[in-house]
Amino acid sequence: MSAVGSEIEEGLCLAPRFDKSGVLPCVTQEASTGVVLMVAYMNQEAFEKTVATGRATYFSRSRGKLWVKGQESGHYQVVREIRVDCDQDCILLLVEQEGAACHVGYHSCFYRRVKTGAAGELEYLAAGKTFNPETVYGASARKG
Amino acid sequence: MSAVGSEIEEGLCLAPRFDKSGVLPCVTQEASTGVVLMVAYMNQEAFEKTVATGRATYFSRSRGKLWVKGQESGHYQVVREIRVDCDQDCILLLVEQEGAACHVGYHSCFYRRVKTGAAGELEYLAAGKTFNPETVYGASARKG
Repeated sequence: MSAVGSEIEEGLCLAPRFDKSGVLPCVTQEASTGVVLMVAYMNQEAFEKTVATGRATYFSRSRGKLWVKGQESGHYQVVREIRVDCDQDCILLLVEQEGAACHVGYHSCFYRRVKTGAAGELEYLAAGKTFNPETVYGASARKG
Repeated sequence: MSAVGSEIEEGLCLAPRFDKSGVLPCVTQEASTGVVLMVAYMNQEAFEKTVATGRATYFSRSRGKLWVKGQESGHYQVVREIRVDCDQDCILLLVEQEGAACHVGYHSCFYRRVKTGAAGELEYLAAGKTFNPETVYGASARKG
């Protein structure tokens, strides 16, 4: 392991390693329950804004712009802790989720699992949606 | 939302959406504790092998090959459940972790958090390493 690698992995200096397109993946977990809510991406500006405001802010790769989670829906994520992984190319946010995380209406984006013994099939985990996305976003909106 | 989008988001057909380089991110969470252990990448072959063998298998983007977690270290991940997110471009694996997940020696790769009120500084969460990586991998090995 090089000195640089060792410093990134074992040091106390925050040095997020954004990829060549300027982003890194962020896993967002509910602090109170441990539920993994979603995975999204951050660029440096989104990361800095998240630290500064205490509200999860991501970078939409498809829309090419910052995205404050909850700005449209009111379903903000209040940041309780920010962790980095060993090689500092991934972030783990611990949050309190207001409303629900998923734009489809579920509390978590991971509302389906691969059905055991039935290759290629999914089954639902959740009892139902937390909200109706058409009511929150309108019929054509995407997420937020 | 298009019909295709709706099917991906609300349907029961597993259709993982690998990116243009053929991979998607996978969050691996300890089933028994809820601890987020690591984030790695899967290509289609890694995903299929994970489903078929019940042991977490990833694709190393830097080495350009499949990587069975635990193959070098003995620290296998026994898969309990596989979830997909709303747009099926991210996987959540629920596993039982044998040994520790992180090649640095910690149980989880997320062993440091951003220190509150001290911009740019990290602090350690964990009491200590679960194993000595030099003993497990040798002085020069990378991970596994």
